[in-house]
Amino acid sequence: MAEAHVAAPPIRRADRARQVADVLRHQIHCGAYADGLPGEPELAAEFTVSRNIIREALAALKAEGLIHRGPRIGTHVAQHKYDHDLDALLGLQETFNGHGQVRNEVRVATTVSAPPSVARRLLLDAGSQVVFIERLRYLGDVPLSLDQTYLAPDIGAAVLAHPLEADDVFPLLERISGQRLGAASLALEAIPADPHSAAILQILGGAALLMLERLTSLADGKPVDLEYIRMRGDRVTMRGKLTRSIP
Amino acid sequence: MAEAHVAAPPIRRADRARQVADVLRHQIHCGAYADGLPGEPELAAEFTVSRNIIREALAALKAEGLIHRGPRIGTHVAQHKYDHDLDALLGLQETFNGHGQVRNEVRVATTVSAPPSVARRLLLDAGSQVVFIERLRYLGDVPLSLDQTYLAPDIGAAVLAHPLEADDVFPLLERISGQRLGAASLALEAIPADPHSAAILQILGGAALLMLERLTSLADGKPVDLEYIRMRGDRVTMRGKLTRSIP
Repeated sequence: MAEAHVAAPPIRRADRARQVADVLRHQIHCGAYADGLPGEPELAAEFTVSRNIIREALAALKAEGLIHRGPRIGTHVAQHKYDHDLDALLGLQETFNGHGQVRNEVRVATTVSAPPSVARRLLLDAGSQVVFIERLRYLGDVPLSLDQTYLAPDIGAAVLAHPLEADDVFPLLERISGQRLGAASLALEAIPADPHSAAILQILGGAALLMLERLTSLADGKPVDLEYIRMRGDRVTMRGKLTRSIP
Repeated sequence: MAEAHVAAPPIRRADRARQVADVLRHQIHCGAYADGLPGEPELAAEFTVSRNIIREALAALKAEGLIHRGPRIGTHVAQHKYDHDLDALLGLQETFNGHGQVRNEVRVATTVSAPPSVARRLLLDAGSQVVFIERLRYLGDVPLSLDQTYLAPDIGAAVLAHPLEADDVFPLLERISGQRLGAASLALEAIPADPHSAAILQILGGAALLMLERLTSLADGKPVDLEYIRMRGDRVTMRGKLTRSIP
């Protein structure tokens, strides 16, 4: 491989299209092209590739739902993606504070018998009752995520006495417990939407979801809030910063 | 909503199936069920739901590629997912150090004219030459991710003189520059696999990918490494911790 730059195979057309699509995707997320994307000849010149490659890249972005294309209308950004902060433990309304109103459609709010693994993570006895809440969360008219929340029974019962349509659960947990939230452990995955979740989120079955599982504890270390959050892949980007540590 | 726990609609079957699937998914990731999942009657008892709901939950996990099911073989975990650390700026080989050998198939390693937005992010003049590397990355025999990397020209040319089949780019950047990496900004999305990327990653077109865009700078602040990383959604989980700050 010492001569990799000599021995490397030529970049094939589909590979070039992927390169172009990735750069355009980033530009779109940054708010470029608010008045529409440049034409194919302009893009081909910018990337020094053929128009066929530009067409293939735009087809991929159209398949992701990022852009609209039409013979006379040109190419336009279909929808704005929302940034969700990976570095801060914030609720959805806290995240979008000032950028839009989060509205929650409360689909379920009840008490259930905790499955053993849920009980274990909330440090409860097997079979304990927990509060279960399912919310479909909108920013404006756009459904962003479907959140399933298991709450420890004491604090959960108090949460159920509050309106959940406009507020996040996090500040409620702090108000009720009289202490700040502490740490959360989270897992992020990309999964296909099952048909039922897809229908609720108004996307096609099998569409890519960003799935966030998050266990949040109070400042004293007690785990109180286990959430499974399905975010529409075409509407949410998670953003964060990292610093290099010694590997 | 003060009486939400009374007024709430009943939990529908598909909603219960989603609840069950989410808990089972977590259990599978934690390494439970190495000898196979319990039978439908046992799971129905554990979750206090009907066997129909258990079947629907298992069907969703099968569609995600997480489990195999068969009439005589029972239900087994199809594949192990790998955890990738969200809190540390590490290369893939550094991440899996001790857990497996990363092998890189170098598909492209060459010099290209940087598209304007790539040049801008690397703080280069428009039209500058940059090094472009595309690697298909395996852990054992499993393709995990397809990485496209743009490197600043000076450091990139030196990287090309090193073998890339077994090593990460990060330690090379540090060795060549004589300084540590500093910070990285990252964006995480769930996107559908375009047909070409899917074929390379050995998944179906449209399958959910975890897409990571990462711009990494040296300790002195100079951005040197812009990567677009497509991770197989069925093989990788990103995990991290967060601490509550004042919203």
